[in-house]
Amino acid sequence: METSRREVAAMIALGGAGIALSPASVEAANVETNLVHHVFFWLKRPGSQPDRERLLAGLRTLRGISAIQRLEIGVPAATENRDVVDASYDVSELMFFRSVEDHKTYQDHPLHRAFVKSCEHLWARVVVYDMAIVPG
Amino acid sequence: METSRREVAAMIALGGAGIALSPASVEAANVETNLVHHVFFWLKRPGSQPDRERLLAGLRTLRGISAIQRLEIGVPAATENRDVVDASYDVSELMFFRSVEDHKTYQDHPLHRAFVKSCEHLWARVVVYDMAIVPG
Repeated sequence: METSRREVAAMIALGGAGIALSPASVEAANVETNLVHHVFFWLKRPGSQPDRERLLAGLRTLRGISAIQRLEIGVPAATENRDVVDASYDVSELMFFRSVEDHKTYQDHPLHRAFVKSCEHLWARVVVYDMAIVPG
Repeated sequence: METSRREVAAMIALGGAGIALSPASVEAANVETNLVHHVFFWLKRPGSQPDRERLLAGLRTLRGISAIQRLEIGVPAATENRDVVDASYDVSELMFFRSVEDHKTYQDHPLHRAFVKSCEHLWARVVVYDMAIVPG
């Protein structure tokens, strides 16, 4: 069989797209993850749009820390209002780490310390949940 | 250029491996995710190993719900004990959804309802955080 460059490119693209979209590959890519670090911030000025933007901008600087395997930044979602749902926070950060050691590296990282120093005046309360992923 | 089947296979494999391992592809694979649903459970019998196992087993049945893009199940991690860290919960579930609609599909799913019915006697308290991921 003779295969053209275009065919090769298409097959690679197809293979690539297939891999990029399959849940199996996401699992493979995250196979080493075993720690989730989820932080919720309540602003001193609850609901303040400028303060929220400042905090979100500060959190984005954490993307420079390579120990973080995945970082998602968010705000309360528009899901159903139920008694068990706490939607009172203003901003949240969700991180995945490969290990407790990597999490410690992040905590001590100059970029993290700079973030806390430049943004801590914005928040009234912080709650952190650290979760060890149970396999299976 | 003439390309052999073997060369094509190698190029696809190479492309595939590169995609599966690069953080950029993880982002790409999750490009549609915009909702994080994080639930914390406190057992009626705090620290009870059998009740914890029952709850973990119940949570694993949720893997059958296709609306869930990613599901991680966990327990408090062995990170540093700090004032801001709440490590008092017993079990936690973390889910990613493509949309608020998919989250609603999950809430109403027979497997989710069956899980609640079979496990709710185990927990004393549940706290849910729903987070809309902010791009950038």
